[in-house]
Amino acid sequence: MINVGIVGAAGYSGVELIKLLSNHPKVEITRLFGHSTVGSRIDEIHPSLRNMVSLEIENFSSESLNGLDLIFIALPSGQTYDVVRQAYSRGIKTIDIGGDFRLTNLDEYKKYYKHDHGAAELLNYAVYGLSEWNESSISKAEILANPGCYPTSILLGLLPLVSSNVIENSNVSIISYSGTSGAGKSAASNMIFSEVNESIRAYKVGAHQHTPEIKQYLETFGGYSPEFSFVPHLLPITRGIYTTITAQLKSNVSEEEILEIFRSNYNSKIFVRLLHPAIPEIKDVNYTNFCDIGFKLYENNSLVLFSAIDNLVKGAAGQAIQNMNIMYGLPQETGLLKCITKHKLH
Amino acid sequence: MINVGIVGAAGYSGVELIKLLSNHPKVEITRLFGHSTVGSRIDEIHPSLRNMVSLEIENFSSESLNGLDLIFIALPSGQTYDVVRQAYSRGIKTIDIGGDFRLTNLDEYKKYYKHDHGAAELLNYAVYGLSEWNESSISKAEILANPGCYPTSILLGLLPLVSSNVIENSNVSIISYSGTSGAGKSAASNMIFSEVNESIRAYKVGAHQHTPEIKQYLETFGGYSPEFSFVPHLLPITRGIYTTITAQLKSNVSEEEILEIFRSNYNSKIFVRLLHPAIPEIKDVNYTNFCDIGFKLYENNSLVLFSAIDNLVKGAAGQAIQNMNIMYGLPQETGLLKCITKHKLH
Amino acid sequence: MINVGIVGAAGYSGVELIKLLSNHPKVEITRLFGHSTVGSRIDEIHPSLRNMVSLEIENFSSESLNGLDLIFIALPSGQTYDVVRQAYSRGIKTIDIGGDFRLTNLDEYKKYYKHDHGAAELLNYAVYGLSEWNESSISKAEILANPGCYPTSILLGLLPLVSSNVIENSNVSIISYSGTSGAGKSAASNMIFSEVNESIRAYKVGAHQHTPEIKQYLETFGGYSPEFSFVPHLLPITRGIYTTITAQLKSNVSEEEILEIFRSNYNSKIFVRLLHPAIPEIKDVNYTNFCDIGFKLYENNSLVLFSAIDNLVKGAAGQAIQNMNIMYGLPQETGLLKCITKHKLH
Amino acid sequence: MINVGIVGAAGYSGVELIKLLSNHPKVEITRLFGHSTVGSRIDEIHPSLRNMVSLEIENFSSESLNGLDLIFIALPSGQTYDVVRQAYSRGIKTIDIGGDFRLTNLDEYKKYYKHDHGAAELLNYAVYGLSEWNESSISKAEILANPGCYPTSILLGLLPLVSSNVIENSNVSIISYSGTSGAGKSAASNMIFSEVNESIRAYKVGAHQHTPEIKQYLETFGGYSPEFSFVPHLLPITRGIYTTITAQLKSNVSEEEILEIFRSNYNSKIFVRLLHPAIPEIKDVNYTNFCDIGFKLYENNSLVLFSAIDNLVKGAAGQAIQNMNIMYGLPQETGLLKCITKHKLH
Repeated sequence: MINVGIVGAAGYSGVELIKLLSNHPKVEITRLFGHSTVGSRIDEIHPSLRNMVSLEIENFSSESLNGLDLIFIALPSGQTYDVVRQAYSRGIKTIDIGGDFRLTNLDEYKKYYKHDHGAAELLNYAVYGLSEWNESSISKAEILANPGCYPTSILLGLLPLVSSNVIENSNVSIISYSGTSGAGKSAASNMIFSEVNESIRAYKVGAHQHTPEIKQYLETFGGYSPEFSFVPHLLPITRGIYTTITAQLKSNVSEEEILEIFRSNYNSKIFVRLLHPAIPEIKDVNYTNFCDIGFKLYENNSLVLFSAIDNLVKGAAGQAIQNMNIMYGLPQETGLLKCITKHKLH
Repeated sequence: MINVGIVGAAGYSGVELIKLLSNHPKVEITRLFGHSTVGSRIDEIHPSLRNMVSLEIENFSSESLNGLDLIFIALPSGQTYDVVRQAYSRGIKTIDIGGDFRLTNLDEYKKYYKHDHGAAELLNYAVYGLSEWNESSISKAEILANPGCYPTSILLGLLPLVSSNVIENSNVSIISYSGTSGAGKSAASNMIFSEVNESIRAYKVGAHQHTPEIKQYLETFGGYSPEFSFVPHLLPITRGIYTTITAQLKSNVSEEEILEIFRSNYNSKIFVRLLHPAIPEIKDVNYTNFCDIGFKLYENNSLVLFSAIDNLVKGAAGQAIQNMNIMYGLPQETGLLKCITKHKLH
Repeated sequence: MINVGIVGAAGYSGVELIKLLSNHPKVEITRLFGHSTVGSRIDEIHPSLRNMVSLEIENFSSESLNGLDLIFIALPSGQTYDVVRQAYSRGIKTIDIGGDFRLTNLDEYKKYYKHDHGAAELLNYAVYGLSEWNESSISKAEILANPGCYPTSILLGLLPLVSSNVIENSNVSIISYSGTSGAGKSAASNMIFSEVNESIRAYKVGAHQHTPEIKQYLETFGGYSPEFSFVPHLLPITRGIYTTITAQLKSNVSEEEILEIFRSNYNSKIFVRLLHPAIPEIKDVNYTNFCDIGFKLYENNSLVLFSAIDNLVKGAAGQAIQNMNIMYGLPQETGLLKCITKHKLH
Repeated sequence: MINVGIVGAAGYSGVELIKLLSNHPKVEITRLFGHSTVGSRIDEIHPSLRNMVSLEIENFSSESLNGLDLIFIALPSGQTYDVVRQAYSRGIKTIDIGGDFRLTNLDEYKKYYKHDHGAAELLNYAVYGLSEWNESSISKAEILANPGCYPTSILLGLLPLVSSNVIENSNVSIISYSGTSGAGKSAASNMIFSEVNESIRAYKVGAHQHTPEIKQYLETFGGYSPEFSFVPHLLPITRGIYTTITAQLKSNVSEEEILEIFRSNYNSKIFVRLLHPAIPEIKDVNYTNFCDIGFKLYENNSLVLFSAIDNLVKGAAGQAIQNMNIMYGLPQETGLLKCITKHKLH
């Protein structure tokens, strides 16, 4: 059994981790850590966990790492440095669901996260956990930087096109919409039901912290980053991210070639489902670790690409567990999916 | 023209007042008062008001009453005393949308609102503005206590039955559900979209401050208050209140008599619509000042009564304007409804 | 392994069964049966099942029972008779999620379901699957009548009070609200998003087919049925049922006694969670087999009782699997819940 | 008074027309026409209209035009030809809210609407009713083709840029999202609440009938149509359209110039509100005839443009009334907006 601890257990990502891990055959959730919730039982704070998990939330300290094999961190940016540093020095693996260990450029980090990085010496050891594109490195990772929710939905769609060099390096339009759980549990007057319901709004336009992450990993896994604009929107739903990308296809590329590019990249990847010619819908990936992908080639040679994920699963806790499975040599779907029928993954 | 000022203009009820009053042919909105928003233009705070109303929000002071005929107050309980006292002393009418001037029993007030009443000497002059049941007194009111949203939906349904003495004095079950706008604009972690969406919950069970208001005005207008339990619930919608009441009918009363009781009470009341045998739905009263009423007599002689209102209109700003119309001798629907066809109100 | 077939696989309850059973360690989904969908793969009709289950939907015939141990039926009322008859005659267990085998009174059946019963000779062999109240009979059942969604939420709340004889036999008010998935996938103009969203409405008032089911099983498991009125409402959410029950407590019964009654009935039942003094919320039971219960004693001795379930899980597919587990001597939570921590079920 | 009839009165656009027109000081709704609803009173079919409008729905015939000045048509495409032809021949103005009289290219019409045009001889007389861009022609129109909901939100945003020649003629990405009321009241299994709620999906990708309309009127009013891809999405809200457009700005154009272009086009247009630097939200235009516009210039010189309208008002009934006002020489906002404060429209 893998003994895991969760830091930041009482937030949405933390609770999602608890629910998914409590169904994992190789994991024992051993300790939960928090801050304002210390001393309470997790199922008192989240009644949805009653009769499932009743651990008490503790303060994190160096001693609390005793007996743990791996730490999941679900903390706001800037609060993770000490936990990662201590775990790393004791040879305990960490999976950080937040954004602190994704960017290698410290200036970009400061520009978008608004503070200096407090553990720059560890960045070299961090591995980006886009499971389908970095499996080999993930399998050896000690510090795993779990991808952001938007970048997951965007990179899984764009990388096959970028790495195959089939789109023009003109501006790529990336329009994403997220459910509200991505904003966390904190009270904010613009997140109350009356302000979000029956509406939609773009936010952090031109300034979202996932922008440099998308750029960096297009370069890392795709070879280069085309010019792009990324526009996140808030949707009146709780869970899910939908991304609609418009790119200009090179003139000699056919729809069949696009299809083949996606097939060859993802046919052996259980959590990416190519729907073409069907178009993804968020409801089909809700509460799952799947990323659904579809596309349409327009008459003017514009390629419109769609992807859908559950932001709390493939966009956070689920991909974190998928990465843990890779790190421990388990089948990627362990604890996330069962009973695949024979017709699958030919 | 009636020159009106609005105190607490930036909250949901305040903005609803502005929108409705800006469509009123006999009203000029002259001044807006606020607290944390002073110095801003109302349409900067509420972009929905752009190109409609651009008044600057001011601090309320005694001098600011100059030139006003009437003040609408949309403030939290406990903050209204000075405004009402100053207006009253200068002969300016006030309509308080909040709960400070509804209860005559000071102990009940303190028990439910958690603080002493700061203007007890004025309570004698306050008139309860349940428009359909108190028109004569309203027409002469100087201080108008606008009814609560829940009491409006409940009293309009129950009063015909209570005043006609057709239900048993056994426990009446009052189950109400409200949209989130009733909770106001303040940030609260249990009001964020992720916590309210795809759910329903009862709240303030047995402790809601509208309980004594319901009781008092059943007695005032109905002659007595039957035993009742009132259970408010929060719905994942922005606007609307739905109430389902179960009472035991006296054994000799027929469905036809019930129908006749509602007809005789409401046939001349433009804003109450008797739907029987149809059942009300919130969507049919949304953004209107109507209260829709329906009922069903069960085999065991239980009478189940339904009512639906828009909490921000008939439950707040709309009824306030209806009351203002009565106070100024205008047709009740002025500014709230137009163009009634001939077939109506036979 | 238990080899199961599902009849009516493409409806909401059918798909929920597939998703839950595909995670069950002792079950193999062997065959899927449908009607208009015959010849399609289930994951073509429901893209959410891609990479999970890809069985083709077949026409049901006698031969298709070969090799099956158990059949789940998720069909509209009146369409189940042949399937049950054939399965029963061949010694194959059936679990009917619909309403055809719940009522023993054929007149009531006809009155509420609008057609004669086509397999009356089998009613004697049917066992009602309210898991927490009928475990012994369920364990020997050949034909299992899975409870309705509303009755599950109502009976789990009321039965402890009725069987303990602590409430007056005066009218009990039962107010329930359901998400839209209870109405199935069929097109209906009053179920489109624009008609349901931002609203609530009561429906089938005094005429819902679950009424006689509630009455019959209050008598069976509680010893008698108090007079009650049942009023179902439609909520703008997809999943979940919330029930608010108001009953008059006998005068000598204390809150502590009520608490003890619920504790003694449910402390050993893993899927019923007593929240008192907290109040249930639908979101806490979403996608789970739990029923959350809370209550409040009012000053006038009214007892207000709350329960929340997910209508597709504890109200349909989940309880069906719980019953299958009982029928096969498995722990009730098998495939539905894992990894209970030690502190639980003290 | 203008005596108007409404054909297709019982659909969503028809009812919206009735509600708005019943508040119009210069209009008398004289007759309502329908098909399956003939013989019923409109307020029986739409209880929301009770106590407001109680006209009976009639079959349309030539005689029914007697006494009418203007006909609003809210019918599906292909059903309008006879009504328009008869009205035109008798000198009665028509405003068609549907798509039959917008396209001048009959091949495009057939390609997108799937049937031949049945009144091609009248197309020459039809005037496109994009109020802010075609006022002079509208004022003289006999047959008014009211713009589609998507084109309204798109053209009002793009036309200032196109007509000013400030964007590159490379691909423009147009991503739009609509509430469900745009799909009408008909039952459809993919429009039921359970299928739409908590999700989002693109639809009619590359095939939406508004595509040629956008192109044609970019050319008409802007001088040319840049290459564009239009991708409509369905949102889980009832009312509203949001459009996010990404275009490449010519390199020598500044943000300030863009701002000035929008200001000079719209400062005198009461129903277009330039929010810059704020970003539009659907909730701010709900139930109004406003179109809110905002934009952001990205570092890579991409211009991202946002617009929000209420699809039933500015996208249908509201703009139709605005056009009627222009046709009759009334102020554009008559019946749609009142009481503009002095600080406005400087």
